[in-house]
Amino acid sequence: MNKILLREQLKSFLNEDIGTGDLSAELVFTDERSKGVFLAKGEGIVCGTDIIGETYSFFSKEFNVEILKKDGDRVKKGDKIAVVEANVKTMLTCERVVLNLMQLMSGIATTTDRYVKALNDSSIRVCDTRKTHPGLRMLEKYAVTVGGGYNHRMALYDGVMLKDNHIAFAGGIENAVELVRSKLGHMIKIEVETESAEQVKQAVKAGADVIMFDNRTPEQIKELVKLIPENSGIITEASGGISLDTIASFAGCGVDYISSGSLTNGVGVLDISFNSAFGGKV
Amino acid sequence: MNKILLREQLKSFLNEDIGTGDLSAELVFTDERSKGVFLAKGEGIVCGTDIIGETYSFFSKEFNVEILKKDGDRVKKGDKIAVVEANVKTMLTCERVVLNLMQLMSGIATTTDRYVKALNDSSIRVCDTRKTHPGLRMLEKYAVTVGGGYNHRMALYDGVMLKDNHIAFAGGIENAVELVRSKLGHMIKIEVETESAEQVKQAVKAGADVIMFDNRTPEQIKELVKLIPENSGIITEASGGISLDTIASFAGCGVDYISSGSLTNGVGVLDISFNSAFGGKV
Amino acid sequence: MNKILLREQLKSFLNEDIGTGDLSAELVFTDERSKGVFLAKGEGIVCGTDIIGETYSFFSKEFNVEILKKDGDRVKKGDKIAVVEANVKTMLTCERVVLNLMQLMSGIATTTDRYVKALNDSSIRVCDTRKTHPGLRMLEKYAVTVGGGYNHRMALYDGVMLKDNHIAFAGGIENAVELVRSKLGHMIKIEVETESAEQVKQAVKAGADVIMFDNRTPEQIKELVKLIPENSGIITEASGGISLDTIASFAGCGVDYISSGSLTNGVGVLDISFNSAFGGKV
Amino acid sequence: MNKILLREQLKSFLNEDIGTGDLSAELVFTDERSKGVFLAKGEGIVCGTDIIGETYSFFSKEFNVEILKKDGDRVKKGDKIAVVEANVKTMLTCERVVLNLMQLMSGIATTTDRYVKALNDSSIRVCDTRKTHPGLRMLEKYAVTVGGGYNHRMALYDGVMLKDNHIAFAGGIENAVELVRSKLGHMIKIEVETESAEQVKQAVKAGADVIMFDNRTPEQIKELVKLIPENSGIITEASGGISLDTIASFAGCGVDYISSGSLTNGVGVLDISFNSAFGGKV
Amino acid sequence: MNKILLREQLKSFLNEDIGTGDLSAELVFTDERSKGVFLAKGEGIVCGTDIIGETYSFFSKEFNVEILKKDGDRVKKGDKIAVVEANVKTMLTCERVVLNLMQLMSGIATTTDRYVKALNDSSIRVCDTRKTHPGLRMLEKYAVTVGGGYNHRMALYDGVMLKDNHIAFAGGIENAVELVRSKLGHMIKIEVETESAEQVKQAVKAGADVIMFDNRTPEQIKELVKLIPENSGIITEASGGISLDTIASFAGCGVDYISSGSLTNGVGVLDISFNSAFGGKV
Amino acid sequence: MNKILLREQLKSFLNEDIGTGDLSAELVFTDERSKGVFLAKGEGIVCGTDIIGETYSFFSKEFNVEILKKDGDRVKKGDKIAVVEANVKTMLTCERVVLNLMQLMSGIATTTDRYVKALNDSSIRVCDTRKTHPGLRMLEKYAVTVGGGYNHRMALYDGVMLKDNHIAFAGGIENAVELVRSKLGHMIKIEVETESAEQVKQAVKAGADVIMFDNRTPEQIKELVKLIPENSGIITEASGGISLDTIASFAGCGVDYISSGSLTNGVGVLDISFNSAFGGKV
Repeated sequence: MNKILLREQLKSFLNEDIGTGDLSAELVFTDERSKGVFLAKGEGIVCGTDIIGETYSFFSKEFNVEILKKDGDRVKKGDKIAVVEANVKTMLTCERVVLNLMQLMSGIATTTDRYVKALNDSSIRVCDTRKTHPGLRMLEKYAVTVGGGYNHRMALYDGVMLKDNHIAFAGGIENAVELVRSKLGHMIKIEVETESAEQVKQAVKAGADVIMFDNRTPEQIKELVKLIPENSGIITEASGGISLDTIASFAGCGVDYISSGSLTNGVGVLDISFNSAFGGKV
Repeated sequence: MNKILLREQLKSFLNEDIGTGDLSAELVFTDERSKGVFLAKGEGIVCGTDIIGETYSFFSKEFNVEILKKDGDRVKKGDKIAVVEANVKTMLTCERVVLNLMQLMSGIATTTDRYVKALNDSSIRVCDTRKTHPGLRMLEKYAVTVGGGYNHRMALYDGVMLKDNHIAFAGGIENAVELVRSKLGHMIKIEVETESAEQVKQAVKAGADVIMFDNRTPEQIKELVKLIPENSGIITEASGGISLDTIASFAGCGVDYISSGSLTNGVGVLDISFNSAFGGKV
Repeated sequence: MNKILLREQLKSFLNEDIGTGDLSAELVFTDERSKGVFLAKGEGIVCGTDIIGETYSFFSKEFNVEILKKDGDRVKKGDKIAVVEANVKTMLTCERVVLNLMQLMSGIATTTDRYVKALNDSSIRVCDTRKTHPGLRMLEKYAVTVGGGYNHRMALYDGVMLKDNHIAFAGGIENAVELVRSKLGHMIKIEVETESAEQVKQAVKAGADVIMFDNRTPEQIKELVKLIPENSGIITEASGGISLDTIASFAGCGVDYISSGSLTNGVGVLDISFNSAFGGKV
Repeated sequence: MNKILLREQLKSFLNEDIGTGDLSAELVFTDERSKGVFLAKGEGIVCGTDIIGETYSFFSKEFNVEILKKDGDRVKKGDKIAVVEANVKTMLTCERVVLNLMQLMSGIATTTDRYVKALNDSSIRVCDTRKTHPGLRMLEKYAVTVGGGYNHRMALYDGVMLKDNHIAFAGGIENAVELVRSKLGHMIKIEVETESAEQVKQAVKAGADVIMFDNRTPEQIKELVKLIPENSGIITEASGGISLDTIASFAGCGVDYISSGSLTNGVGVLDISFNSAFGGKV
Repeated sequence: MNKILLREQLKSFLNEDIGTGDLSAELVFTDERSKGVFLAKGEGIVCGTDIIGETYSFFSKEFNVEILKKDGDRVKKGDKIAVVEANVKTMLTCERVVLNLMQLMSGIATTTDRYVKALNDSSIRVCDTRKTHPGLRMLEKYAVTVGGGYNHRMALYDGVMLKDNHIAFAGGIENAVELVRSKLGHMIKIEVETESAEQVKQAVKAGADVIMFDNRTPEQIKELVKLIPENSGIITEASGGISLDTIASFAGCGVDYISSGSLTNGVGVLDISFNSAFGGKV
Repeated sequence: MNKILLREQLKSFLNEDIGTGDLSAELVFTDERSKGVFLAKGEGIVCGTDIIGETYSFFSKEFNVEILKKDGDRVKKGDKIAVVEANVKTMLTCERVVLNLMQLMSGIATTTDRYVKALNDSSIRVCDTRKTHPGLRMLEKYAVTVGGGYNHRMALYDGVMLKDNHIAFAGGIENAVELVRSKLGHMIKIEVETESAEQVKQAVKAGADVIMFDNRTPEQIKELVKLIPENSGIITEASGGISLDTIASFAGCGVDYISSGSLTNGVGVLDISFNSAFGGKV
């Protein structure tokens, strides 16, 4: 993760919520200090603990954050994730942005962990897609890795994915791969979406680096992976509507990666609360 | 919605996904044009259709977007939401950002609609909270209104909310409201969180503009609203863990507003797909 | 005030004045340190003292600012407002931006204080408008509060103001308020501009939160406030061309707020000078 | 003026006022069009008419602005400055930003014109200083030229000004000028502040490009200008507390430029109103 | 290339050169139109012709650019690259930014073309490095492709390169690759820098996607490529001080790619001039 | 140099190279510290050493940079320029941006030094032009001064340059200068490009501050400078295709300045390497 970019994003998120000022905190508090605690209100994998300190540091360098559950740790309801000591205005003004991010990131890490556990096949890696919340991709893709998943391409610039439109326009898979290969440097991989054994064969022949089986059943995939020559270095990926309910059925199907937009898209959050001392709850 | 801000946000979202370039589209296509269609893949309320044209217009002014289902319209699986004609590179490069936003916004509008329908009490308004995805609040709060809900305060700058910490520090609800009122102009409302009849009475006495019943049952609320003097102009709000499963039980409880973070937080998306002509699917 | 936003604004202001470099300071000085003093050159209310340290801190953390007259303090000609010790280049490079802001903000605080003193009626609050210098609203509205005034809505997003155009289009005050109320959440107030007793009655009936008497005389206002039902919670505001010369005549008129664009618009500055040691004047 | 920079500034100013949306306009209007008129409410010099169109164009390209009084034209109360036809939301949402800028710029142009008229000596040019509102310098310096004045250096980067601190540190005027000249390219001028005949002589000897007489009376200046060798190309400038009341006394004193911070600092605005059709006032 | 990013960069470059205004053009011209021509003043490959129109369009949409030599075309001294018709201020204000970019980009394309021609081995591709001018990487990497070269990784985010430090810390090439592979998704390639046959063998065994021969002679490379198993899919790259003088000696050495920082780093520009009509030179 | 602007530029340059993260460093290292050294790999003048610390400080304040050769010092191959101690990830992530800038800036300083040495006439100053890499002008112009050169105008805003187009349009040099002078303040200089004795005479008569002899030979210049009246204060400049090979021939020609785009345009870099401890090379 790029910490410079992270801070730019946090600055933008804080400004979205604070605008010209946090009226409630500014009108009530002066410069009192307080303690606070971040508590898990459900079970899952924690992610985003760095956000607390990075966010507070926009207001003052004088605060203390003690992380009790670090990114990747499993929590159950009631577990303390972090205890903090800071200016009470800083705490309250940052509270919502910190919670919104930590809940989202922990939710993604938790979901990813569930997918990995449900699949229960260590020879297959679970990975994300580009179905992330606009503006939050770096953080969401980080959360996937914290949950035990892997990152697919980050965006349109770091990997080629040839889909139906590209293939149709180029006149078939082989033409499309050849066209791209003729212009593309050696550090970028080419993935080809396939929907049939015929297309898989074409992709193999074309020299694709990665072959995606789009919307195929586990049984179909078992047959399709046989079409990949041994030692070819070609990586296979299953994609398309694979959910927490269905992923277990892909165990043993022989594919290398399963990608699912559901890791980051419409995922439930991990509920986390923040209580601070003036409210008597710490 | 501020269109200037919308365009700045879309520019930022597009740059997140495109970076130094859409390798796949740039290496395959030149300047061909194509048609495409946005299709609902589930049932719900459409939201975010303006995003299509605003996004395309970063690349060229020469495109056509025909909106068949406008914001607020109900769709069922298979319904065409919009048909477009544009440069194929524009379409494909924008596809993911447009879908990520439209699915999110339509998901929020659909969820809000479900809450309103489940509540089934036109005397109570359903409203959102500040539990939105950082960077996306304007769009998500808009989606709530499209789904038939109302907006709570936008952020920390446009409304005062006195919670446990503020109240404890100021020495009680009356002191807290008085302290704030002594400094605050006449265009900002003061809301007080209460957790007991005693606190409600104090809030009424303090002259709060809005009184929130935090984590109260419908039965408790029925009693609490009786503490609000008639014609006082005080608005009441129920909040705290109210979900799609429980909201119906609040019908008839006499509160003015029910706020729920679940409208925007961890909400499911409405699945929408984009198919374009070179893939033969339009 | 949002300190993150403040620093972004100061950065922008410093870059406006420094551009590619402060030629005079860079060509003469190396890394000498100096002392300096900010002196009032007129009588008034000081505002903006935080600007000094926030501005210096863009260049180095090694400086000292001792505030002798804090925001809200009254100064007379010759009073020392702050004494500083820092790198001489930092001092001179920041001098103009710091003075331009402090003089403006102190000018607004001073003007506001004069309005409040001239009015001499503690039951009426003096408040600002949106007639601020573009880009400086947060700072100028802060200065109004330092001078003993109150803030009207910050901008177009945190309050509804129904003026002649809105009313004419909606078909009257009642229709306009009803239309807005049907879509607006409970945390935003609705103010209605009125120019006659008839309109005031309509606004009351419509349930406006705030009623503005536009361009009315004190005598007219005395009659108009009688139209506001007791305990209605409706707040009244007098506006329109009220100046330092005329505000005293509004004492006792019974209105709640007097708003005047003159607090921030075309206001005289409080003259402040900065002298530093190399010039022998400290 | 740099139109790219102007548009960036206007975007920032509009976002300051609109934020997440113009609640009043959005809740009342849909896409109706209207006519409007900008009217002078006082006498002076108009400045900033381009702002209208540049501002509207952030929302739509479909509007018409007819400028009746262009920048530099003299207006009297009641004169129409511009008539416009546009979407009513665009008009109302932009109104305050446009008026705040036009009133400020016209106020500066008007003030400058008054200084020039009061001086009534065409051999002396009136010029501005760096005492401008932070963030608005380009616009304010433009307004000075529209009012018949001239621009002093724009900022710290485009001219050297040696003041007491620089001179004291360098060990006198000659040393200071020599030090700067030894490092400075040939396109930047060096101005020296002087407070005595002795200092003027030193500045002449040092080869200053511009010599400022700081806080000198017209009589003193008449003597000081005699110290400038004929055909030396040295330009002289009187500065320091020269106001509209006193500038006439400088006529005939022989100086080349009179600079006054009062052109831009704490200047009164030219009152301008905007009326649009729905209010029936056009 | 991302056109949104391109326009942001051009805006920034224009503001660097124009600042508060193009004094010369603004003080002399009003709104006259003119014709102009971009002329090659040396021999080479043209690149960057889109810059002309994109730059002009910041000022007005009313201009015409006719490209006579498009990106990738070879020009000789005196060839017309483009003829333009526009507002004369637009032309002159944009001239320097356009020329600075076109000369740089054409210089890179020309240099790349010379490397490819000098190598004269179509089985080896010439590629760039990250030795680009900060802020200009997207444009410079594009220019390499226009000159017949290929792009190495764009930056630190789209490819893994394991150099001496990474390898030493991880405890050898195999450990380093294994460590990275255990966390990295399937769309990113891993390149390993090697300096000996032993290291090449380790990299092969480790399963590196790309193996770089760092600072090896053509003769050494001929031996090293023999260590790469056939059909392994491993790509080889020679790097380190390969210049226009020495690249020919690498013909036939069997490597897949030759990378050279000299394509973009310290490269000579292609001289291009702009003449416009008022000067009588078109 | 404006340090605020410098940091903004460095932030932008780092984000260009790091994007969403430095995959290699993040996947291999955790928080180990290391030592490193910047070594000259050629002979020249060092420039840009501040960049190291400014860049590292984006990631942590805990590092040490010891500058052994400061800006302006001459180095030979093998000289240590700086030794550093820091987090190894910080070092590696910043390495390329730091080197790209230091090599460029040192290359410019070295080139400038060579021009000055080759000219070998201390009565003539060597200066730069606006032919800089877009986005890097402040840094490149600084490097020119470090190499013993002088800065011509920074950009279009801080000096008037009347070229063929301006002159042709205005109807001759005298008209052009008079037109500009009538609107321009006293702190900006006017330079006139001339190509003949006749034009030089006109420029003198017009009162130009600086007269450029465009594309004249040393012999022609010797004659042209005789046309400049003694003690007129007019500065002369030779420009147009003057290179390192030809500059010596201008010694003794009597001109004040020689400007050359080659100082910054297409200049060779000074090769600098960075070695850190894990690679065993420090």
